[in-house]
Amino acid sequence: MTTTLITGGTVVNATGTNRADVLIDGERIVAVLAPGSTLLGHDLAAGVDRQLDATGKYVIPGGIDAHTHMEMPFGGTTASDTFETGTRAAAWGGTTMIIDFAIQKYGERVEDGLAEWHRKADGNCAIDYGFHQIIGGVDNDSLKAMDSLLDEGITSYKLFMAYPGVFYSDDAQILRAMQKAADLGLMTMMHAENGPAIDVLAEQLVEQGKTTPYYHGIARAWQLEEEATHRAIMLADVARAPLYVVHVSAKQAVAQLTAARDLGKNVFGETCPQYLYLSLEEQLGAPGFDGAKWVCSTPLRSRAEGHQDSLWQALRSNDLQMVSTDHCPFCMKEQKELGKDDFRKIPNGIGSIEHRLDLLYQGVVTARITLPRWVELTSTTPARMFGVYGRKGVIAPDADADIVIYDPQGHTSIGLGKTHHMNLDHSAWEGFEIDGHVDVVLSRGEVIVDESGYVGSKGHGRYVKRGLSQYLL
Amino acid sequence: MTTTLITGGTVVNATGTNRADVLIDGERIVAVLAPGSTLLGHDLAAGVDRQLDATGKYVIPGGIDAHTHMEMPFGGTTASDTFETGTRAAAWGGTTMIIDFAIQKYGERVEDGLAEWHRKADGNCAIDYGFHQIIGGVDNDSLKAMDSLLDEGITSYKLFMAYPGVFYSDDAQILRAMQKAADLGLMTMMHAENGPAIDVLAEQLVEQGKTTPYYHGIARAWQLEEEATHRAIMLADVARAPLYVVHVSAKQAVAQLTAARDLGKNVFGETCPQYLYLSLEEQLGAPGFDGAKWVCSTPLRSRAEGHQDSLWQALRSNDLQMVSTDHCPFCMKEQKELGKDDFRKIPNGIGSIEHRLDLLYQGVVTARITLPRWVELTSTTPARMFGVYGRKGVIAPDADADIVIYDPQGHTSIGLGKTHHMNLDHSAWEGFEIDGHVDVVLSRGEVIVDESGYVGSKGHGRYVKRGLSQYLL
Amino acid sequence: MTTTLITGGTVVNATGTNRADVLIDGERIVAVLAPGSTLLGHDLAAGVDRQLDATGKYVIPGGIDAHTHMEMPFGGTTASDTFETGTRAAAWGGTTMIIDFAIQKYGERVEDGLAEWHRKADGNCAIDYGFHQIIGGVDNDSLKAMDSLLDEGITSYKLFMAYPGVFYSDDAQILRAMQKAADLGLMTMMHAENGPAIDVLAEQLVEQGKTTPYYHGIARAWQLEEEATHRAIMLADVARAPLYVVHVSAKQAVAQLTAARDLGKNVFGETCPQYLYLSLEEQLGAPGFDGAKWVCSTPLRSRAEGHQDSLWQALRSNDLQMVSTDHCPFCMKEQKELGKDDFRKIPNGIGSIEHRLDLLYQGVVTARITLPRWVELTSTTPARMFGVYGRKGVIAPDADADIVIYDPQGHTSIGLGKTHHMNLDHSAWEGFEIDGHVDVVLSRGEVIVDESGYVGSKGHGRYVKRGLSQYLL
Amino acid sequence: MTTTLITGGTVVNATGTNRADVLIDGERIVAVLAPGSTLLGHDLAAGVDRQLDATGKYVIPGGIDAHTHMEMPFGGTTASDTFETGTRAAAWGGTTMIIDFAIQKYGERVEDGLAEWHRKADGNCAIDYGFHQIIGGVDNDSLKAMDSLLDEGITSYKLFMAYPGVFYSDDAQILRAMQKAADLGLMTMMHAENGPAIDVLAEQLVEQGKTTPYYHGIARAWQLEEEATHRAIMLADVARAPLYVVHVSAKQAVAQLTAARDLGKNVFGETCPQYLYLSLEEQLGAPGFDGAKWVCSTPLRSRAEGHQDSLWQALRSNDLQMVSTDHCPFCMKEQKELGKDDFRKIPNGIGSIEHRLDLLYQGVVTARITLPRWVELTSTTPARMFGVYGRKGVIAPDADADIVIYDPQGHTSIGLGKTHHMNLDHSAWEGFEIDGHVDVVLSRGEVIVDESGYVGSKGHGRYVKRGLSQYLL
Repeated sequence: MTTTLITGGTVVNATGTNRADVLIDGERIVAVLAPGSTLLGHDLAAGVDRQLDATGKYVIPGGIDAHTHMEMPFGGTTASDTFETGTRAAAWGGTTMIIDFAIQKYGERVEDGLAEWHRKADGNCAIDYGFHQIIGGVDNDSLKAMDSLLDEGITSYKLFMAYPGVFYSDDAQILRAMQKAADLGLMTMMHAENGPAIDVLAEQLVEQGKTTPYYHGIARAWQLEEEATHRAIMLADVARAPLYVVHVSAKQAVAQLTAARDLGKNVFGETCPQYLYLSLEEQLGAPGFDGAKWVCSTPLRSRAEGHQDSLWQALRSNDLQMVSTDHCPFCMKEQKELGKDDFRKIPNGIGSIEHRLDLLYQGVVTARITLPRWVELTSTTPARMFGVYGRKGVIAPDADADIVIYDPQGHTSIGLGKTHHMNLDHSAWEGFEIDGHVDVVLSRGEVIVDESGYVGSKGHGRYVKRGLSQYLL
Repeated sequence: MTTTLITGGTVVNATGTNRADVLIDGERIVAVLAPGSTLLGHDLAAGVDRQLDATGKYVIPGGIDAHTHMEMPFGGTTASDTFETGTRAAAWGGTTMIIDFAIQKYGERVEDGLAEWHRKADGNCAIDYGFHQIIGGVDNDSLKAMDSLLDEGITSYKLFMAYPGVFYSDDAQILRAMQKAADLGLMTMMHAENGPAIDVLAEQLVEQGKTTPYYHGIARAWQLEEEATHRAIMLADVARAPLYVVHVSAKQAVAQLTAARDLGKNVFGETCPQYLYLSLEEQLGAPGFDGAKWVCSTPLRSRAEGHQDSLWQALRSNDLQMVSTDHCPFCMKEQKELGKDDFRKIPNGIGSIEHRLDLLYQGVVTARITLPRWVELTSTTPARMFGVYGRKGVIAPDADADIVIYDPQGHTSIGLGKTHHMNLDHSAWEGFEIDGHVDVVLSRGEVIVDESGYVGSKGHGRYVKRGLSQYLL
Repeated sequence: MTTTLITGGTVVNATGTNRADVLIDGERIVAVLAPGSTLLGHDLAAGVDRQLDATGKYVIPGGIDAHTHMEMPFGGTTASDTFETGTRAAAWGGTTMIIDFAIQKYGERVEDGLAEWHRKADGNCAIDYGFHQIIGGVDNDSLKAMDSLLDEGITSYKLFMAYPGVFYSDDAQILRAMQKAADLGLMTMMHAENGPAIDVLAEQLVEQGKTTPYYHGIARAWQLEEEATHRAIMLADVARAPLYVVHVSAKQAVAQLTAARDLGKNVFGETCPQYLYLSLEEQLGAPGFDGAKWVCSTPLRSRAEGHQDSLWQALRSNDLQMVSTDHCPFCMKEQKELGKDDFRKIPNGIGSIEHRLDLLYQGVVTARITLPRWVELTSTTPARMFGVYGRKGVIAPDADADIVIYDPQGHTSIGLGKTHHMNLDHSAWEGFEIDGHVDVVLSRGEVIVDESGYVGSKGHGRYVKRGLSQYLL
Repeated sequence: MTTTLITGGTVVNATGTNRADVLIDGERIVAVLAPGSTLLGHDLAAGVDRQLDATGKYVIPGGIDAHTHMEMPFGGTTASDTFETGTRAAAWGGTTMIIDFAIQKYGERVEDGLAEWHRKADGNCAIDYGFHQIIGGVDNDSLKAMDSLLDEGITSYKLFMAYPGVFYSDDAQILRAMQKAADLGLMTMMHAENGPAIDVLAEQLVEQGKTTPYYHGIARAWQLEEEATHRAIMLADVARAPLYVVHVSAKQAVAQLTAARDLGKNVFGETCPQYLYLSLEEQLGAPGFDGAKWVCSTPLRSRAEGHQDSLWQALRSNDLQMVSTDHCPFCMKEQKELGKDDFRKIPNGIGSIEHRLDLLYQGVVTARITLPRWVELTSTTPARMFGVYGRKGVIAPDADADIVIYDPQGHTSIGLGKTHHMNLDHSAWEGFEIDGHVDVVLSRGEVIVDESGYVGSKGHGRYVKRGLSQYLL
């Protein structure tokens, strides 16, 4: 087993920073030490296989992206990143664990969906991974199948209030699933948009000849995100179940979460980098069909209405707890193009897995969030929320040595031909110039990214059985 | 320098727990280690002077009580704990740092008040201590004196909206002081009760012959705490200054803090154990003059109105961030007795410094808060809020070795003749039977409490110069 | 044409009272006069056919009950009051107009439902009547049929978020109907309960053997009324349509209406006497099967939770605008009994049409509402809300002479064999002793109730074509 | 006694409109009649002295301006309108009653202040008038003097949270006065701005050389209006007294009123035309010293922040109940000029008494409020709020014949040399072109304005003793 000593850096944890060295033995961190390589007279540096100099840099727990969709079938095509390409891009960006969504659709068996996801991921990943389970068809069979999820290390599952006919659950189904989840201790994740109402608006827009990507954002009005968010909260209240709302983009949806949290409810929300930076007017409303790059659901929101600022504020006040990517890339060619004449046919999704840590770090640079909060949002809380804290999400003894050495003085240019390792023929972030740089990435003690680039190996990543959420009460 | 190794325990930090050993060299923690005494083949246990076995126990950062009043003159008498007796009692209870209030009254010089507090504390303390500064008379001189507080290591100061003629500041004074604090980066602490209105009600009650301790609680109506809390928030908003409201007891005051925080304001609040456990009806309304034991301001609130539950909930949702004691003990004899015929003359204060950690731990036992939250509320956040994090408030390398070994299987009986080391002729907590026990307390690497009791020494405690708050943004 | 002069009374309108005489010529009020029978020297008293002495009494516009269900088929039986018996009972109680619900169910034609309701009512009513239209099956045909409602004098229609398989509309249907209503200027009335979720809970309760009437109230949890109320508000917001929520019973639903109104939305709510006076614990929870008398939806709410007081307060603050009865009587025998073994089979409904004015007047007696507010809640606002103001709802020249002389010194005993003229084998209000008494009732200038009792005639009541709401902006 | 018949018009009351004739005998309305001059065969038109043709026009109760300051001493000068000139201008604008403020300052006797106001007004007024009492120095004497206000027909009094050293009351004084008012049934009116804090900001601005009128608006920050509004609400809550907040201009202050009203509190607010139409940026920020014309307190607010729209909305939702003018005119020459070098010395006040009805009617034209709401805001609610309803504020028998015939097809040009009869060397509304026109004004049965202009007489107006508020509960 290789031993590694990271020296001279500033360890950033969720509550603050301290100057410390980190000693790794094999896959695990074995000690966090006061700077200087001697301990009780023992010269640790002399005894290790490898030293990494982090002087002037941050030593942070590797990023955990709790919302990705590798190789996901959607709208007649499939998300363009495989587990191989997607997790490699993640590694480039300092993310050392993903939690992807295994899918069960109506009429399928939950077990089969899960098995397929294992097949897709197994032996292909650059970093560790876990699964949430999508339950797209709540019925007696799928409810029964939830019993075995815990044993599988899957402690969270997702329902959809949108996409009637595909993933949609009605309120009776949602309530039944939440009751089951409450019994088992599972976390319910919710795509909270009123799909039936959205579909009415979308159909009307198309009938009026409003078919461009911009109208994707108009059809998915914030009112219908707010509504569904409130509904999910109330159904969870009836079921006495905790609730985690994915990809929150509307400030009014945040307000619903905030109100519920003020009442002490176990209600959580994530947002994604696209909702913090991009907008309905600028991106979705780009000339021609270009806006298709940013067609995702929930949609980008109006900057004039101030959603972006509200989301940043909610990250500060912990009304939103995490930032994931909802990574679900589709190429323009042959994929996004499917909706050239009808925005409803554009595959929904944006690829960001590579840039999450960098993009969020800009919030530190611009004083929107603190340095510890950056680590909390991108690693510590995801670990706690989804039951891997202790092993992941923290620089502490006995934790997996998933570590990023981040250079605050570095610089990152995003774009094709620059930093772009996702399997995607465009970048949603083309032209972003970023302060900070991911210098070194370790996954379970192994250096997988360094100054020479990606040096990891396909199959290094292992499936992680997760425990119950550690964020509740 | 003594070296110590704490082995076998569960280290609890604010975000979670991990099994780890802690190595102390002199006054500081030098390493947090994976369990087991070897590191890269070095047998650490063999090399240390002392081992402490924490198997089955929690290893937590020592408590920080950010609100105490040792030897404080009030209403013609003086708080009964000296720095010596008070900090010793603190040590018994697992608190390893206090922040006491140096006092400037109207007509006095700030520098003189501070100097006197140093005289009182210097050489007398069992544990480390810092000071906040009370500014009881805001004028050009005292505003100018605030300039030098930072150099003195005092980064927070307190104003009073109550006690006209003693500590009271009017709104013009408050605004001026907050503006100054915003310039300097100081934290404004506020006693938020509308004193002039309270005094009207109190006078009317006494005129009506309602003179018993119970009416102390009636005169200090929750409306007047809510009002002052909101006013302080708005004045801070005008001054663009952060605000920390002390001893919050009314649920409506919490609601004002919550609303301000939902808007993203840097507004914070502490509560105290008495407001979480005791009530207007049961304690203040005790037969005869017994209620005088619990006369403090803000007052104990009605249990029927649900304040206690709301405070617990606010601790969970982080709408209140900390629990301090507002330790300000007065004996019944010759002190509380001063108000036998007029509740207005009862010295205001309760002694709890010894029991804060134990009392809060009951919230873990009853599932009101999580184990990490217990540490966050009693140590980590106080450290961050008041600028000593890194050195205090965390189990991490380079931090002061202020450590408590806490036995969750232990038991503590509170009361005179049992655990009661405060200089007080009664206990506000008499008869409380508590799960958990403070087994060992280290202050800067020195064991000051162990199974034989208090083994520290007067004068061990040092004055801590504090930096700016690390909790802001 | 008969001329009538009402003398000596206090006219109560929605903004206040004045002493005035009222002169009626035929069906209409022709003058409201300063007290005393001469006008410019003309002796009016001498010239009229009939004088009614209202000395010491209130002269008020006749009550308008905007929510009744005569002869309504429900759960395999039919509401026990016909238009004849129901409107006669209304007259006894000072109500001079009802607005009943014509019904279209899924698969039926709207026109047919309306025609049937005309058949039921025509020639049978003691007082004037109008119709709302229930749209139980929103589809292209029924949406098209809405076009002709205005011509029929029907300016409001009702949807149901409850009763899947009977009246239920899903969110897509609701949105389509609201959009249509917004185009036409129609008022959308909503039964706001989450029916699919309720059915899950109800089924689970029955499976657990919890089959008594009490569990009707448990299954229809307040969360599911609040949720549906919020959802209806948001869908109306998307459709830019006004919204009127029927039979609001949960304080949290009121809070949703209040919040929407605070934002300036055209959102309205009615409650019913049963929600103001009766409770889950006392009535629904009555021993044996007795609670069945009070099975209605929304259900009676818990008094311990304070819903009743909140509703009264909302009537004061105009967060609720009206009080209707939702009169829908079912006898215990052969009707309520259907659900002896399963609360789900108890026909939903309470009979109150006779007692609304008296019951609300108790709010004046107990100082919960003012005297003018009583008139506003029971007559003026219903008239404005549903487009008959000017003709109804006010004592003013040219208005229909629908007038009640109400004696505040009178007394009314409610119960079988006392005042009970509804076709119902029990009274939901048995034993209520009421201050105040309906002395005389005029419908379009004709006395239909006087000291000898009901003296009207079947068929006197006429269908009233209603205009658009006069309450909007 | 003259008899008058107004024919052919549309009577507008607060709940709606009806076509009706109005018969006046002497000072009072004796009948409101169905259109057409015969009644029971009597030809009324033939018997009256005078007929006024209101065909195509609105017949409304004369305006009541509940907030004026005639001949008010302020800042070393005196408001430029006397009771003679001010009430004449009021008459031109359709206002038939004012309620002015008698003043007691600290050190003066309440009785003397009131007596002086009677001297000023007696024999000089064109229209009826009443008084509120300002209590500028709350002490035992003035509290005792409040006992006799009811007998004087003064049922409301005003306190100031601003203007330290002039009218300012501290919180103890406010609480004492409110308690007294609650005992007596008086309405407490409040100038809600935090004067001590404002004075700090104003002094700082002037020290920085920011002396122009614009900085008047900056010094009086919305936070300090919101704060004082909340404080007044809470003190009223403690005193169990109703509260009426004058000249509300900040949307956040409205939000405080809204929140209190949502809780069922008897809390009311008025705004003024200037806050609905004018802004910080456009008027206060006008070039040079021109902004001085619009220096009033509370100040004009930022249009960018949306206060104006929020106020209009609050008028709709009845979170604000009335519109008064706070008429307090000062000429630019020799008056406003006093503050040429220091905005603090500009006399505070705007003259609008002549234009209130016209300006509010624009809200009807632009569909911000309904026609009945216009009458409610300008006449009916003022009458109810301040205890003259029945006699004023309504077109009903026995009411004073204070009536305006308003032509919705007319047009009014505001400005010097056009419609401007206030004693003021400029108009705050110069250049406003208004739909609608005040055609005829009657005061107690006498025509005082007609097509030839003002035809009334000095001394016609009488003092009106007011009863307790009719708007409470």
